[in-house]
Amino acid sequence: MRKLRIVGQRELRTDAIAKATGRVRFTADMRRKDMLTGKALFAAYPHALIKNIDVSEALRVPGVVTVMTAKDLPGRNGYGVMIQDKPVIVESKTHYEGDAVALVAAVSDEAAREALRRIKVDYELLPAYDDPREAMKEGAVRIHENHPVAEDGNILVTLKLDRGDVEEAFAQADIIIENDYETPIVEHCYMEPDVCIAEPDPLTGGLTVISPAQAVYANRRSLAGVFGIPHNKLRVVSPLVGGGFGGKEDSCLDVSAMAGVLAVKCDRPVYMELTREEVFRTTGKRHATYISHRLAATKEGKVLAVDVRTILNKGAYVSMGGMKEPLHAVTMRTLVYAAGAYHVPNARARSHSVFTNTPYACAFRGFGVPQATFAMECQMDELARRLGMDPVKIRQINMLRHNDRTITGQVMLESRGLGLGECIEKVAERFGWDKALPAAAGPVKKGKGFAVYMYGTGIPLLFEGSNCYAHLQLDGTLSLAVSSTEIGQGLNTVLAQIAAETLGIRVADVVVELSDTAKTPDSGPTVGSRSAVLVGNAVLDACAKLRERMLTVAARYMFAKTDPRDITIEDGVVSVIGKPELKQPLSAVAAKAYASQVPLAVVGSWYPPQASFSAEDGQGNPCHAYAFGAQAVEVTVDVETGVITVQRAVMACDVGKAINPVNVEGQMEGGSAQGLGWALMEESIMEKGVMRNPTFHSYMIPTIEDLPRLEPIIVEHPNELGPYGAKGVGEPATIGMAPAIRNAVWDALGIKINVIPLTARQIIKSVKEHEQGR
Amino acid sequence: MRKLRIVGQRELRTDAIAKATGRVRFTADMRRKDMLTGKALFAAYPHALIKNIDVSEALRVPGVVTVMTAKDLPGRNGYGVMIQDKPVIVESKTHYEGDAVALVAAVSDEAAREALRRIKVDYELLPAYDDPREAMKEGAVRIHENHPVAEDGNILVTLKLDRGDVEEAFAQADIIIENDYETPIVEHCYMEPDVCIAEPDPLTGGLTVISPAQAVYANRRSLAGVFGIPHNKLRVVSPLVGGGFGGKEDSCLDVSAMAGVLAVKCDRPVYMELTREEVFRTTGKRHATYISHRLAATKEGKVLAVDVRTILNKGAYVSMGGMKEPLHAVTMRTLVYAAGAYHVPNARARSHSVFTNTPYACAFRGFGVPQATFAMECQMDELARRLGMDPVKIRQINMLRHNDRTITGQVMLESRGLGLGECIEKVAERFGWDKALPAAAGPVKKGKGFAVYMYGTGIPLLFEGSNCYAHLQLDGTLSLAVSSTEIGQGLNTVLAQIAAETLGIRVADVVVELSDTAKTPDSGPTVGSRSAVLVGNAVLDACAKLRERMLTVAARYMFAKTDPRDITIEDGVVSVIGKPELKQPLSAVAAKAYASQVPLAVVGSWYPPQASFSAEDGQGNPCHAYAFGAQAVEVTVDVETGVITVQRAVMACDVGKAINPVNVEGQMEGGSAQGLGWALMEESIMEKGVMRNPTFHSYMIPTIEDLPRLEPIIVEHPNELGPYGAKGVGEPATIGMAPAIRNAVWDALGIKINVIPLTARQIIKSVKEHEQGR
Repeated sequence: MRKLRIVGQRELRTDAIAKATGRVRFTADMRRKDMLTGKALFAAYPHALIKNIDVSEALRVPGVVTVMTAKDLPGRNGYGVMIQDKPVIVESKTHYEGDAVALVAAVSDEAAREALRRIKVDYELLPAYDDPREAMKEGAVRIHENHPVAEDGNILVTLKLDRGDVEEAFAQADIIIENDYETPIVEHCYMEPDVCIAEPDPLTGGLTVISPAQAVYANRRSLAGVFGIPHNKLRVVSPLVGGGFGGKEDSCLDVSAMAGVLAVKCDRPVYMELTREEVFRTTGKRHATYISHRLAATKEGKVLAVDVRTILNKGAYVSMGGMKEPLHAVTMRTLVYAAGAYHVPNARARSHSVFTNTPYACAFRGFGVPQATFAMECQMDELARRLGMDPVKIRQINMLRHNDRTITGQVMLESRGLGLGECIEKVAERFGWDKALPAAAGPVKKGKGFAVYMYGTGIPLLFEGSNCYAHLQLDGTLSLAVSSTEIGQGLNTVLAQIAAETLGIRVADVVVELSDTAKTPDSGPTVGSRSAVLVGNAVLDACAKLRERMLTVAARYMFAKTDPRDITIEDGVVSVIGKPELKQPLSAVAAKAYASQVPLAVVGSWYPPQASFSAEDGQGNPCHAYAFGAQAVEVTVDVETGVITVQRAVMACDVGKAINPVNVEGQMEGGSAQGLGWALMEESIMEKGVMRNPTFHSYMIPTIEDLPRLEPIIVEHPNELGPYGAKGVGEPATIGMAPAIRNAVWDALGIKINVIPLTARQIIKSVKEHEQGR
Repeated sequence: MRKLRIVGQRELRTDAIAKATGRVRFTADMRRKDMLTGKALFAAYPHALIKNIDVSEALRVPGVVTVMTAKDLPGRNGYGVMIQDKPVIVESKTHYEGDAVALVAAVSDEAAREALRRIKVDYELLPAYDDPREAMKEGAVRIHENHPVAEDGNILVTLKLDRGDVEEAFAQADIIIENDYETPIVEHCYMEPDVCIAEPDPLTGGLTVISPAQAVYANRRSLAGVFGIPHNKLRVVSPLVGGGFGGKEDSCLDVSAMAGVLAVKCDRPVYMELTREEVFRTTGKRHATYISHRLAATKEGKVLAVDVRTILNKGAYVSMGGMKEPLHAVTMRTLVYAAGAYHVPNARARSHSVFTNTPYACAFRGFGVPQATFAMECQMDELARRLGMDPVKIRQINMLRHNDRTITGQVMLESRGLGLGECIEKVAERFGWDKALPAAAGPVKKGKGFAVYMYGTGIPLLFEGSNCYAHLQLDGTLSLAVSSTEIGQGLNTVLAQIAAETLGIRVADVVVELSDTAKTPDSGPTVGSRSAVLVGNAVLDACAKLRERMLTVAARYMFAKTDPRDITIEDGVVSVIGKPELKQPLSAVAAKAYASQVPLAVVGSWYPPQASFSAEDGQGNPCHAYAFGAQAVEVTVDVETGVITVQRAVMACDVGKAINPVNVEGQMEGGSAQGLGWALMEESIMEKGVMRNPTFHSYMIPTIEDLPRLEPIIVEHPNELGPYGAKGVGEPATIGMAPAIRNAVWDALGIKINVIPLTARQIIKSVKEHEQGR
């Protein structure tokens, strides 16, 4: 293998300057005056029967072009990322606050808003559920009368995993740790609210839908039937995306469905934008979970078994929740990661995904894994504490090693022995784990916490594979087209690096086109920390083909009697190895290829090994590659105010190979910040299906002021199947923070708290209960 | 070969309804309020030195953002379709009326116009040439002092062809026909004036250029250096094109260059649109020619030799005129077609392309071939007349037959004996050539005329090859992307038919994306009647690959133990041949392929055999396939008013295979109309470089009222290398009309006129001279 010149370098992101100077155009910047404005009348009550809708007064508002109810839809009234169970406009019943009851298109925002006010809806209220444990009880009112895949009343699905002999293991155990954990409903809080431009195309009779989507092809598959438009006439475009974190898999589908049916109905372009409050109330959220976790171990600290029951708050619709077929999704991941990153020979896990009247729960950075890992990492800390062992030591004893089997039975070929071990060691060393914290004076207590995790790259069970279109230009520059979106994660820089490394040009010579079904092949959705690996491999395939063609042309026409294997391309210069005087610019070789009937456009593809996962017992190889990580934090807790401050965070992640280290560090820092928010402050507070804090005044997220010094450490144990060894990093980075903080708070206060977020109110309450309990 | 189901059908054009109902968007429809308006100050004098330019007053006009002169340009001040000799803004000298002296960008049209009025230019006048015969004389003022490729003073190039022994043949001849012919400068008169939107892309630092271009990749190659932007950051888009006829190869380059440099300078989007008068004065024209033609024949009517000297009015710049390297272009074609569609064993041809101060001459439907054929077909009529032979008979005696050699020495493998012969026979038969015309009474005389022609498909000497991107969608529909443009010729319908036939779907299931360098591979320029064949073959290649993949998947997964060769796809249904009950929709097979890791996106390519043409003697195989045609017209001529009316026109064209017969007939009808305009009325009248009729009030083109009954006949002698046998038809269709009309006028009046257009003024003058001559 050639020495790497570009992969592994700290490249400035290709979009950095244009974004930092505010000059790029997002979807909202493309609004034109000739577009109608679309608005939705959302459900006034989260769970209610709709007895009557009267839109006659709304239609009389000057400037209103149409008012649509379900009966006016052009196609199928259902869509979704896995199953088409979410109606564009509900027909006779609301399931949550975000259900659209009617849609309006008007020539101005004012007219549209006035029309919304004049729509009269008669509701008959039903009891609304916030808590899946209530909704799954016998006698609960069914939220979906005829849901296509719900298994039992409000229980969407129950998935299971069984490995070894759990009963026997618990019987043999020296120690059993048993706890209930709770994690909250969380909003993605992407910067750019959901927005869509839907514009009929008179030439094809189709529609162009522009929105900051994470998955243009998945959106098209889901929406084609809603609009009644064939795939090749439904152009789905995702310009730059102002953050998504998994949420814009669904939310852009929501807004696109609404804007799209209005555009089809009116046969005019429609612009639709959600307010921030609408984003809070209507779009998908992270699954809240209720986890009952039992862990059996020997007195030497070896974990023998886990027995885990997870109840997931599905909210109103399936989204990326989980079904039996296809299996991959959040619910299934709570099984796979029920024992965290440890070698646990016996495991039983049951996960119930249950409908409630809260916003549908969907993909959210790490989907399912942060919740499962939170529980397991809390358990491990308690195990260490009960055995009087060091929390790091207990993790080292149990961590997955090369050739170990996970609780799905997958043999760990990934870590080559030490991916996780090296992360633990490096974090402990950098953090100075062995040194005691200096004592804190007065009401401010200090503590430190540790956590480890693993995370599988991609979504192989749902479907995997990636295609890329690459076009070498006559001046030696390269155009790449993939359907994956630059969502702020730096993907396009990483792909440019892979392309530049493979072909032998500079990063500056690569342009990655924006995602657009009319011009990019299907490289899959931008989810699951899959893009660097899956799409990167497709780019590598395409560029390797182009490189080979260029070497062949150079050998044949430009360096007579030279073997192509003796030619190289670096920085856009084609030269004979060892004879630097024999060289040509790549542009000259490309021009020669062009004139010599050698195509300069190629499609590259990559597919991972087929994944497996049994619905019977949760056994199989659900992912081809796993990233590993470790995290340590130091916190101070003011027992009088309840305020927790994270003073320091050290994190290591085995990313296989950091294509762009600065980007990987950015992901680790951003993921830690998001994990910190999840641990300390973020929560959508629901009250009978009504969100009580749908604004940034009442819903807190971390600002730069809330962040500690973040110290990312990159560990590289190559993924043999990844491009230049890479594994995914986007989601892994967010997992470790919450359990590390919770464990540090226990360390600081000596109080065990099993519920996040650890708000000031929660801390004061726990301190009070603890004091009262004494 | 499977029975054809779609190719050969009279398909409704896929863009027919959207265009007929006026709903599609052309470039001008994309203008936005936030765009600056760009305008050019064109040369006040066609040939002058620029002594000084003062833009200070112009810059003071409120709303003016910039005024650019040559010194303000961001990159190379030169571009062109073959050589970069046309400046964006002239520096010190004007060469024709269309030279830009300065450019203005302003927030309104009014401000821009006011700024133009306030620019002060001091000129020093030079003599201006309209006639290349004057410009090539010794002592003429040089129009380009330092032209990069001009051979001798104002002579751009002299090309030659020599075959056999011309002197000997003339010595042996029984009869020699010798005449001078003249053809005019003609404007393309496309409906849509030239227009461009140039918009900086802050994300890449590049530029997007939208204009109704015929050749997005060629434009990009030419403009990248002008803007100083790499190819992959210069996105060139051609939406629907409102006619081009070869003109928009150059004219869109002109307007794009001007709008682009303004956009780069201002770093803001710029909209620029030429007025119709500007289109007349500044854009390219058909080469005027002055042809001295000598023809030697036996008394039996067998042509022994031709000796032809052609002087082409190049106008101010090279454009598609001709050079020694690359050789292909208009000038060279006047050699290749100097003997028309006949087997002539001895030939000498000299063609001089000469700079003048008229608008640059460029590609125009048939480039060079109509002019050369006009002269030869006039000669042949005179030969028949002098020998007392029938004009059809003389053509049958001399026509190219299978295995004959052309005057370039190319062996005619194309016509399989009878492509041309069948055209002649069918036209004569349908027209009723043998029947005498009924005598006309009074001043209105009647006559009939005949002409034949041949035309090589494509531009192989310049470069040939075509690439296509094809994406089979999961619902069984297909997206195609090529850089060739739908210019009104019906290309996208033809490509959809080829794709549908090859893959086995319906035409309605195919979408051909609009031309855009960011999404379509390079399929070459939309010129030279090449697209149906060259691009069609690339589409065929791509769809054949997709079909094979689908058959393989169906055989492997859906019809167990079936050989892929026993499976077919028709109308989107995949079935086992002979077992109609074994079938699956293509969408199901595509979905299975998708799930089975079979890529659904492919690049298709096609390259014709390498062409050849010697600069030494004009010998070689300049084209891989030739279309043939014959045309007969009946005219009436009013000798008092001079008005010629074409009463009837029958035309046959050997198109190899008519992919869409209604489209082919449309091309034959449209080409005939354009040929009629050339013959009877169209001419840009120049006076010392100044155009005297730059409006549709003074420049006449045929309307529907001027057209006779048009009777197209399709003849099909398959091109073995063409998709389903096709050859090009767009340009051939325009060649036959002018010589047929001129010959008919001679028949009607008994007066030989060797100059077109045959305006009423010309007829009256000729009749008067003829009467005086008696």
